[in-house]
Amino acid sequence: MADSIISAEILSVSRAELTPRQDQLAVEEPLEIRLHYFLDGQLERRNIAITMRTPGHDRELALGFLAAEGIIQSAAQVQACEHSGAEALKGNNSNVIKVTLKPGVEVDIGRLERNFYTSSSCGVCGKASLEALETIGALAAADGGFTISAGTLHRLTGELAGSQTWFRQTGGLHAAALFDENGASLCLREDVGRHNAMDKVCGYRLLQSQRRKLGVFVSGRASFELMQKALMSGLPLLAAVGAPSSLAVQFAIEYNLTLVGFMRDHHFNIYAGEKRIALQ
Amino acid sequence: MADSIISAEILSVSRAELTPRQDQLAVEEPLEIRLHYFLDGQLERRNIAITMRTPGHDRELALGFLAAEGIIQSAAQVQACEHSGAEALKGNNSNVIKVTLKPGVEVDIGRLERNFYTSSSCGVCGKASLEALETIGALAAADGGFTISAGTLHRLTGELAGSQTWFRQTGGLHAAALFDENGASLCLREDVGRHNAMDKVCGYRLLQSQRRKLGVFVSGRASFELMQKALMSGLPLLAAVGAPSSLAVQFAIEYNLTLVGFMRDHHFNIYAGEKRIALQ
Repeated sequence: MADSIISAEILSVSRAELTPRQDQLAVEEPLEIRLHYFLDGQLERRNIAITMRTPGHDRELALGFLAAEGIIQSAAQVQACEHSGAEALKGNNSNVIKVTLKPGVEVDIGRLERNFYTSSSCGVCGKASLEALETIGALAAADGGFTISAGTLHRLTGELAGSQTWFRQTGGLHAAALFDENGASLCLREDVGRHNAMDKVCGYRLLQSQRRKLGVFVSGRASFELMQKALMSGLPLLAAVGAPSSLAVQFAIEYNLTLVGFMRDHHFNIYAGEKRIALQ
Repeated sequence: MADSIISAEILSVSRAELTPRQDQLAVEEPLEIRLHYFLDGQLERRNIAITMRTPGHDRELALGFLAAEGIIQSAAQVQACEHSGAEALKGNNSNVIKVTLKPGVEVDIGRLERNFYTSSSCGVCGKASLEALETIGALAAADGGFTISAGTLHRLTGELAGSQTWFRQTGGLHAAALFDENGASLCLREDVGRHNAMDKVCGYRLLQSQRRKLGVFVSGRASFELMQKALMSGLPLLAAVGAPSSLAVQFAIEYNLTLVGFMRDHHFNIYAGEKRIALQ
């Protein structure tokens, strides 16, 4: 497994002048997620997904992904989560991660038998028809129990932007971060894929067995899929630096989530769930 | 099918002051792509993908997607490409699009039998294992035959940024645009998914039966998948406003593509294939 950032020789062009220089690139590599689980006492093996991610925090990524897909609900269901393959045997991290569930943990095979997918960043990957979108109707709506002040959100905006160290070096990474009602930042992850960054912080929360309600910050735009992941991980507030899509707003309203967008130093927009924002 | 932009009531928060106002949102809706093709004289039907896209230019999106996946190579292989479902019967556009191939067009079933997918923006969706990534090795490297001056690229940067009308209204859309060696912009598409915007311009090219080499501009970052789509659609130069990932650079070098990043008014970086950039 490579580092998260690598150095490359590039040519910098200003007007018609060309200068060779070193540049930092965000690493993008495939991660294959394999699921091992027991069915009627037999060990079943499934290759669940390949995601193009920035290496690092792969265990969090795998567990957060499985949580978002509704396959696991807690770290207690997981027997082992480890790198696999030839590189792993040599003691290195690899581009394959194997998650083994404890015996007795039931897996919804229907969720795994995905014959279709999407090329976009979507969250409805693998659903065989539009009707399958309705399955999200089975999700519980987020309850209350999380309030944050506008002033705390303003302060977080600047702090979190300053914490994106890899982004500063490469300009090529998305970030996601968890924070509590007091504005304390608990975990920040960066990745070439914004859904991976989100999965990593959700996986972190799962591994920490964090039960209290938290908010999540994302450095880009808010899509349907990110809102779905927030709901599945019990994060009632999502604050995005970028714009939300129509479906992200619709989803937030339907499932009682708070959606904040266009976070700037002293400004943001509330698209849904304003009850969780205190204006002091 | 909805519009590409909708209006919503939001709450704008500046410091501790809250103001209700109208905002424009980029529409995000699922599009299901269905493929009908003939196998041994029998009509076969497959649901290929669901992508979360901004409605509009759905035919281009479907055809560009199929081209990127290696399922079609030209519009001549397509018998029909039309909206389907109940809404379509009423004469409206719908969220389902059906592509029917001409009899005799062979479909690589292996490509369609995807059991796995990824949640990220990846292009290796549906490949069952990391080894499957190697299948891209079968792609032809891009030949030469396209040169553009640094001055023309500088000029295009400003022009294309100015053309993103939906983005200006919503702040929530990605753009892709085709341009020729003289810097003439041929087609610009915007979408909540950057891969959709890319698929739409590739589909446009296919529908126009454009054979000459073109460059493609993308408003965000350059990933492995976008480079793969550029190669599959015969676009030897990709110019991105954002940063490229390590794998995008590696792919560009391997397949002889030109990759330009960090496009600003009078500046850009060349990551691969500098032979296609003339400094005058």
